[in-house]
Amino acid sequence: MPVTVAVDAMGGDHAPDEIVRGVGILSIEAPHIQTVLVGNAARISALLVKTRHDPERISVHHADSAVRMDEKPAEALDARPDCSINVAAKLVADGLADALVSAGNTGASVLACSRNWKKIPGVRRAALAAVYPTETRRGEKDDPFSLMLDVGATLDVTAEDLVAFALMGSAYASRISKNPRPRVALLSNGSEAGKGPPEIVEAHRLLTQATELNFVGNVEGVDIPRGTADVIVCSGFVGNVVLKMLEGVSETIVRLAGYAYKERLIWRAGLMMLSGGIRRLKDLTDWEQYGGAPVLGFDKVFIKAHGRSKAPAITNACKVAAKAVQADLVREIEDGLRAFHHREAALPPEQPRA
Amino acid sequence: MPVTVAVDAMGGDHAPDEIVRGVGILSIEAPHIQTVLVGNAARISALLVKTRHDPERISVHHADSAVRMDEKPAEALDARPDCSINVAAKLVADGLADALVSAGNTGASVLACSRNWKKIPGVRRAALAAVYPTETRRGEKDDPFSLMLDVGATLDVTAEDLVAFALMGSAYASRISKNPRPRVALLSNGSEAGKGPPEIVEAHRLLTQATELNFVGNVEGVDIPRGTADVIVCSGFVGNVVLKMLEGVSETIVRLAGYAYKERLIWRAGLMMLSGGIRRLKDLTDWEQYGGAPVLGFDKVFIKAHGRSKAPAITNACKVAAKAVQADLVREIEDGLRAFHHREAALPPEQPRA
Repeated sequence: MPVTVAVDAMGGDHAPDEIVRGVGILSIEAPHIQTVLVGNAARISALLVKTRHDPERISVHHADSAVRMDEKPAEALDARPDCSINVAAKLVADGLADALVSAGNTGASVLACSRNWKKIPGVRRAALAAVYPTETRRGEKDDPFSLMLDVGATLDVTAEDLVAFALMGSAYASRISKNPRPRVALLSNGSEAGKGPPEIVEAHRLLTQATELNFVGNVEGVDIPRGTADVIVCSGFVGNVVLKMLEGVSETIVRLAGYAYKERLIWRAGLMMLSGGIRRLKDLTDWEQYGGAPVLGFDKVFIKAHGRSKAPAITNACKVAAKAVQADLVREIEDGLRAFHHREAALPPEQPRA
Repeated sequence: MPVTVAVDAMGGDHAPDEIVRGVGILSIEAPHIQTVLVGNAARISALLVKTRHDPERISVHHADSAVRMDEKPAEALDARPDCSINVAAKLVADGLADALVSAGNTGASVLACSRNWKKIPGVRRAALAAVYPTETRRGEKDDPFSLMLDVGATLDVTAEDLVAFALMGSAYASRISKNPRPRVALLSNGSEAGKGPPEIVEAHRLLTQATELNFVGNVEGVDIPRGTADVIVCSGFVGNVVLKMLEGVSETIVRLAGYAYKERLIWRAGLMMLSGGIRRLKDLTDWEQYGGAPVLGFDKVFIKAHGRSKAPAITNACKVAAKAVQADLVREIEDGLRAFHHREAALPPEQPRA
């Protein structure tokens, strides 16, 4: 069954050039995926002429304006409802496309989904889920990546939000990362059930009852790079800080290696001998390889590509979006939430808590 | 002027042996510091006999019991008020010692201070401040360390708590790390003033008015390893996750290097050539070198050494404690808070906020 992906051609640091190039590559590599490029039709068409692509697989849908990377989401969408991200989200809502991909302003993208799509029943807030490399490998694909959510869509969370994130993350890991029974954990300041702010303690209590999940309890900061869990659940504030810190640590190591290279001849020789290993580490931490962060909680699929995405990252993001549609990710999440709330409602009244 | 430090001899993974050894080394290296070893007098005396030390500089104060590392703080202190950490905190409260050092149960240590000492006026909650290595160097000592607080004493914070942490951290960095005008920042999910949960947004507003501080605004996760700020202020929950993650990342790198060593002969040769550089990196990230985390907000000095501390870490923690007393750290913090609240009170009534 062919899948149609709506792509915001105008969002991202390298839009529209690299977005159009990425979709061009996709049209040749993945004949089962149709794309609709949404944005300035004249510019997109001019770019397509210069890009190798299969015209059978790409259509263009005009949008009059676009949201800049630094704009305030609500202001931008209110002022220009004809912007490419809003038009693209509407195409998906109307059934003209099955999924959305954008490398643009994250807040505006999530808001456009929120205004045009429905939430899955039982989900109060959407979550942005990021994959990041760990020491451990897992699943059928021997995958070094763990999933962390939320990483910035919902700063303040309730216990119920955290439970929904856990169910959504587990569904994603099992359907998309082919990890049949992902270990799901809450990020806290200690591994014991009573550790953390009230919403974490309560979420822990609720998750121990979620028998459909492989809930392994709380993990601490030290477990993040280790990969002790396959899905780590936290507030968008904490997840954002952690994810950006991982980025910072990688950059720092690369710079420190640069200093070492300059400082001593023997270190330079050592680094050259190690370059194969360093390249492997770089591959491992290269977000372009894994295509983007799913936004979970809506009744449609949205893959948010990194703002710095170039063509290969866009190609990958579209493939992940198509895979999520084909794997029926939304249905899997719906089923998980329904089962959890059904059992919750059937439980005897809650005991007074300590 | 001699300084007296009360040391909890029974707290820590390697107590009392390594604690007594560390104090023994201190007594020879630092003739201006007196120590009171608090704990089981018979065991301490037996250990002192086997340890090189200057008996003129060490006294022993008996305490009948101790708090284990995994005990619940309030339960332990309620059940055994004669435990070493409580007795040691009381000695300081009574003026028989000037500062406290412990490698024991962090929660119980902070609680013992809280029960025996006073808070500095304007401080609602104490903060545990940790130093961690960064890329940047700063201050008179060309110091690679930044300070982060809180890292676990106060999980949920108000805007006023964050302001107090900023003032306390700045005082510590200028007096102890000899950085005359430390750059103080709030950790958030974006650099703009409006980014973050409500308490961060409000703390940002208050801190822009704190003219005695070198407040540089918000920093993000990526700035933590870079060292963009000298003092990073956050909730105890976020600080704890971040600090433990830094520990985890270092461990992961060491393990990855280990795999590389086994995998290919050329990588092994490269790693051997780099060993000097790796040792330097290890020195930089070795918490034993910098002696412990100050607990700020009380009217007395408390340096919390790492639970895994061995003798050199204890020696260093006592030196830092003595330095904080001699530099009149508590007075510096009092002055900073008084100036801030004085100016706050003198301001015209607050404008309605956006």
